[in-house]
Amino acid sequence: MSCPVLELTQQLIKRPSLSPDDSGCQALMIARLRAIGFTIEPMNFGATLNFWAWRGEGKTLAFAGHTDVVPEGNAGSWSNPPFEPALRDGMLYGRGAADMKGSLAAMIVAAERFVAQHPHHQGRLAFLITSDEEATGADGTIKVVETLMARNERLDYCLVGEPSSHLRVGDIVKNGRRGSLTATLTVHGTQGHVAYPHLADNPVHRAMAALNELVATTWDEGNAFFPPTTMQIANIHAGTGSNNVIPGELVVQFNFRFSTELTEAGIRSRVEAMMARHGLRYHIDWWLSGRPFITPPGELVDAVTNAVRHYQDLTPRLETTGGTSDGRFIARMGAQVVELGPVNATIHKVNECVSAADLQLLSRMYQRIMEQLVL
Amino acid sequence: MSCPVLELTQQLIKRPSLSPDDSGCQALMIARLRAIGFTIEPMNFGATLNFWAWRGEGKTLAFAGHTDVVPEGNAGSWSNPPFEPALRDGMLYGRGAADMKGSLAAMIVAAERFVAQHPHHQGRLAFLITSDEEATGADGTIKVVETLMARNERLDYCLVGEPSSHLRVGDIVKNGRRGSLTATLTVHGTQGHVAYPHLADNPVHRAMAALNELVATTWDEGNAFFPPTTMQIANIHAGTGSNNVIPGELVVQFNFRFSTELTEAGIRSRVEAMMARHGLRYHIDWWLSGRPFITPPGELVDAVTNAVRHYQDLTPRLETTGGTSDGRFIARMGAQVVELGPVNATIHKVNECVSAADLQLLSRMYQRIMEQLVL
Ligand SMILES: [Zn+2]
Ligand SMILES: [Zn+2]
Repeated sequence: MSCPVLELTQQLIKRPSLSPDDSGCQALMIARLRAIGFTIEPMNFGATLNFWAWRGEGKTLAFAGHTDVVPEGNAGSWSNPPFEPALRDGMLYGRGAADMKGSLAAMIVAAERFVAQHPHHQGRLAFLITSDEEATGADGTIKVVETLMARNERLDYCLVGEPSSHLRVGDIVKNGRRGSLTATLTVHGTQGHVAYPHLADNPVHRAMAALNELVATTWDEGNAFFPPTTMQIANIHAGTGSNNVIPGELVVQFNFRFSTELTEAGIRSRVEAMMARHGLRYHIDWWLSGRPFITPPGELVDAVTNAVRHYQDLTPRLETTGGTSDGRFIARMGAQVVELGPVNATIHKVNECVSAADLQLLSRMYQRIMEQLVL
Repeated sequence: MSCPVLELTQQLIKRPSLSPDDSGCQALMIARLRAIGFTIEPMNFGATLNFWAWRGEGKTLAFAGHTDVVPEGNAGSWSNPPFEPALRDGMLYGRGAADMKGSLAAMIVAAERFVAQHPHHQGRLAFLITSDEEATGADGTIKVVETLMARNERLDYCLVGEPSSHLRVGDIVKNGRRGSLTATLTVHGTQGHVAYPHLADNPVHRAMAALNELVATTWDEGNAFFPPTTMQIANIHAGTGSNNVIPGELVVQFNFRFSTELTEAGIRSRVEAMMARHGLRYHIDWWLSGRPFITPPGELVDAVTNAVRHYQDLTPRLETTGGTSDGRFIARMGAQVVELGPVNATIHKVNECVSAADLQLLSRMYQRIMEQLVL
């Protein structure tokens, strides 16, 4: 069986592109895109390789993705070496097979077919590729977006190839993501000996009622696109290890995954009012890793839904759950952003794999999306 | 100025007896006691040196104490080397000056004077000395007490030389100590990703209401001898350090300092009922480091009060506050136990010191206690 999508996926998997090392993946993609008339613009920052590529002009549909992969984990637990792709029973195994070298290959082959059939297409077809999505991403998509915005580059539609699907390719499409906001709360007390609590001020005791309120709070009810906002305490630490020392400080780190019903400022003021109401002496550091974004039904959602329906006997469900993705940066350009990619059951795990048939379907879906938006 | 109490204190300080190393302190004490007719019985266990010494027979008054000291801390911060005693402005400086080599010297010199004046005293005068009170104490006083109890040794009164005083020697006498009970609570949850809290079970969130109740609980009101029981959370830990992982386990360590109104079993059942009522999956380990004990007013308290009043223009206040002491083991023998020693302002600190005049007073007080109870 010779399938250009599978072949390109295998070539990409063979390049062990641990973030932010691209290992030659982008060079391969660039050569293929250049061959069909794309203009390539590398946008490398630090150790991170990025490129922006386009063909045509006018309304712009960009395909976005990352060439980097997460580490292989316990390499000995893999049934094949993680960077030597293996096809067994219709599944292609290898690190990055599902997240997201299969998607990258599907995009490239879709573009090749689309350009071959429509060399004078309307609109502009583009690629926005980075080698750091899995690590900090600090020099990745966000920098490319900033560069494009600084020169008022147009971006109408963006399809991110992240593995969005649950059981069958296309069953779930992400049309938004929740925001992510992390608080690091330090509650100040006065260290002392447990035998003399009146000479100390235990920050754990002091904070308990406030933390109890924090975990019991309903932040919102969600909305048509988002589930209710959640808050989780990820870390809590106080104490010297001794059983007779009252700690001087309590540090609590908690993370919000929030809907478009809330803003960073709104969450911050509610939390800080809570801490103040309980009379805490505290310091709080906030880190916003992504604002929530949503692409309501419209041209891009319609095109994606149509493409999935055309090749699968199902209507994709629009979801906004899960972690963050680089879609949050691209959404800042005012673009409609949707994520459609393969089944995500094995991503970041040992024996990551993807259905070969799904990759072929995915490439066809991508091509049909191009035909609806840039033809 | 030549004072036998000061001289002996200095000789003891020169022996750097870091727990459980006795460094020859006990040999010095033993030689002095043997010279005045004491029978010496070494009771060494492991690396810990202990001895039991007695003179006479009948109602027994024992003086108890430890030769070991805590480390010097930052030696460079001392105004004199910590194991080279220095007398300045009436204060004797050196590690162990106040806790409790000064007391040991005061006891020995008091016994020498008492025996010289009353070679045929009624009753039995005894010493119970260990070289490990400051570290684990596992092979110290507790082992001596167990040995003495196994042979039905009589002990009626025990004066422990711990530095009990606040501003003037004798202003505070400890006639008991609170119990100390430590719980190490592990709350079980299910680890997961903060973006998918419905697939995890955050033990921090689960435990919060129970911990909030724990810190808000009034355990007792204390009684005539004890302040109310206190509970302090000394350590609390959960989390991997990552801001996107829901921890699988929460560990909380808390310590009770409890009065004779409560028992270990009573505290345990109240805490465990609380955890169960909040539906926690948990495991709890308990460690009892001392039961509360009390010596109500009676012969020993009267003798100590009389001795203090005789040499100072004050009536000692009876207290049970502060940490634990080896008195808790000796109380198990059914003895009346009281602690009287020098001012404790500098114990365990850099530039530990004791008033030379106070040591002389203390030795006189000890002698007067002997005269009331074994004459
Ligand atoms: Zn990915
Ligand atoms: Zn001591």
